[in-house]
Amino acid sequence: MELLLRSPLDMHLHLRQDEMLDVVAPLSAQHFAGAVIMPNLIPPINSLERLLCYTTEVKRAAGDHRFDPYMTLFFRDYTHEELVAAKPFIIGIKLYPAGATTNSESGVSQIMAMEHVYEMMQELDIPLLVHGETHGFVMDREHEFCDVYRNLATRFPRLRITMEHITTEAAVSLLDEFENLRATVTPHHLLLTLDDVVGGLMNPHVFCKPVAKRPEDRAALLAAALLTHPRLMMGSDSAPHPVDRKESSGCAAGIFTAPIILPLLVELFDKHNALEKLQAFVSDNARRLYGVEPPTTTVHLVKEQMTIPMSYGSVVPMWAGRTISWRVAEVS
Amino acid sequence: MELLLRSPLDMHLHLRQDEMLDVVAPLSAQHFAGAVIMPNLIPPINSLERLLCYTTEVKRAAGDHRFDPYMTLFFRDYTHEELVAAKPFIIGIKLYPAGATTNSESGVSQIMAMEHVYEMMQELDIPLLVHGETHGFVMDREHEFCDVYRNLATRFPRLRITMEHITTEAAVSLLDEFENLRATVTPHHLLLTLDDVVGGLMNPHVFCKPVAKRPEDRAALLAAALLTHPRLMMGSDSAPHPVDRKESSGCAAGIFTAPIILPLLVELFDKHNALEKLQAFVSDNARRLYGVEPPTTTVHLVKEQMTIPMSYGSVVPMWAGRTISWRVAEVS
Repeated sequence: MELLLRSPLDMHLHLRQDEMLDVVAPLSAQHFAGAVIMPNLIPPINSLERLLCYTTEVKRAAGDHRFDPYMTLFFRDYTHEELVAAKPFIIGIKLYPAGATTNSESGVSQIMAMEHVYEMMQELDIPLLVHGETHGFVMDREHEFCDVYRNLATRFPRLRITMEHITTEAAVSLLDEFENLRATVTPHHLLLTLDDVVGGLMNPHVFCKPVAKRPEDRAALLAAALLTHPRLMMGSDSAPHPVDRKESSGCAAGIFTAPIILPLLVELFDKHNALEKLQAFVSDNARRLYGVEPPTTTVHLVKEQMTIPMSYGSVVPMWAGRTISWRVAEVS
Repeated sequence: MELLLRSPLDMHLHLRQDEMLDVVAPLSAQHFAGAVIMPNLIPPINSLERLLCYTTEVKRAAGDHRFDPYMTLFFRDYTHEELVAAKPFIIGIKLYPAGATTNSESGVSQIMAMEHVYEMMQELDIPLLVHGETHGFVMDREHEFCDVYRNLATRFPRLRITMEHITTEAAVSLLDEFENLRATVTPHHLLLTLDDVVGGLMNPHVFCKPVAKRPEDRAALLAAALLTHPRLMMGSDSAPHPVDRKESSGCAAGIFTAPIILPLLVELFDKHNALEKLQAFVSDNARRLYGVEPPTTTVHLVKEQMTIPMSYGSVVPMWAGRTISWRVAEVS
């Protein structure tokens, strides 16, 4: 049994910097024709100069693979001039509430105090990508943030807003309320609940932000993915940390999936007899919604067992050591 | 400022075996006049012979401190003869649903299939101590288990049933439904929510079973403790694991608090202007409910800063390195 995927895209990816960039960039570029690259570095990518420099680093690290990095700026109070200058080089601007996740300390404290920036982004047709969590109780943060999404979507009806890495039934419902909302969802949030994180032994390698939620949330996300909601895209949020930052008294948030995303998804969609839906979820929806034209590649997957490696460099992937039933045979 | 506590009791304690027992037993015995010792060893303490042997080990490890270990048997399908023989040596029998927590693999699969044992325990007046969690979603397990408590309390109205380490508003409410239900609550569940476990960086040293719940659950537990509900007792569930079993890809469940329980509680009750309630919560309720007569000791606490040590042997305590505002000055 086999499956061909054309130009798969990862619409939410962390590539980091320096040695980590060199380890993980090729692991995404080998399978994906393009990816949206997150800007939460230290310091954040919040100027055109830094963005262009990082773009060069990413392309170098990705090597000879046919791979388009779709760059993002870290949201701040940009001027009109800055936005105009940056537009040709970015796919969107990523907004982090201050302190919501890894390296987001310089994020936004008062989201609705930035309306003048959203207004300019709407006029310039620059998409807004949002990490949607409040500072409330960890299981409620995304649900509580839905009011912010409603507010943004209503006040800026032509602004294209992506709810990044959605994890709840509430966020899935929002997709049908507003035409200008779209969302990414990760493979791990289609597969995990909080039970996998703290239900048995606690597993730092499946701990991420937003944290995996309840079974009914996972069911709603999976239903939307399997039905290929037209405004839902695969964004892995693959987020590597060295093992000593994970198996630690203060474990960093992030799940590393880059090299196993496609096998995981094919196995999942196969199990639900929905293989024919996967092309839209991992590429076509994103191409249509963002108007991107990635390099033409074909990923050939076969239904043959693969054991997930225990590590990639210093990074432990999700489900290290577990055997899954599909693997990538060839990329052409 | 100071406080005297008379014969404090820890009504839920894990002392382990061998080297770990030698490290942790003195840390409880130095402050507490007695403690209920949990039987989930490998193999479990499920015969009188093993119980007597473990009692001897515990007493030896506790050293010269005036400290009464109140021993428990691990629940199984005991005969009447076994129960009669064990009764003088135990404070109760601890029931674990199979697989619910550390070393509970040999626990009970079908709780209501053991009615003949509960019937005999009721007749012999042997208390039943229960780890009350279903195998459902981690945040729902205790709430779901409340039906089992209702069932047990209704069918065996003279059986003294302790809901161990309660973590939810639902369990607090149950206390007022049935006269034959009593409960222990841990200091950490009065202080923590799931936010402390996975809300920021993930912290393995505050991961336990049952996992800390929602803010409204903590509020209900704290209110019951501060009002000194007459059937609520302090049971620390202090549960040491070596650091390499905590800062690990499969972190064991358990929070180690033994040497800091009293300072933590005094600080908390002081903050809520309820210092005069603490004696009942840490001793008098347990003495009345179990009819135990511990050695007469007096713990003298003073309002002076103490920094919690980074470790005790190989064990990292809760809040290692944090400074709290009370300390134990003397035990006499």
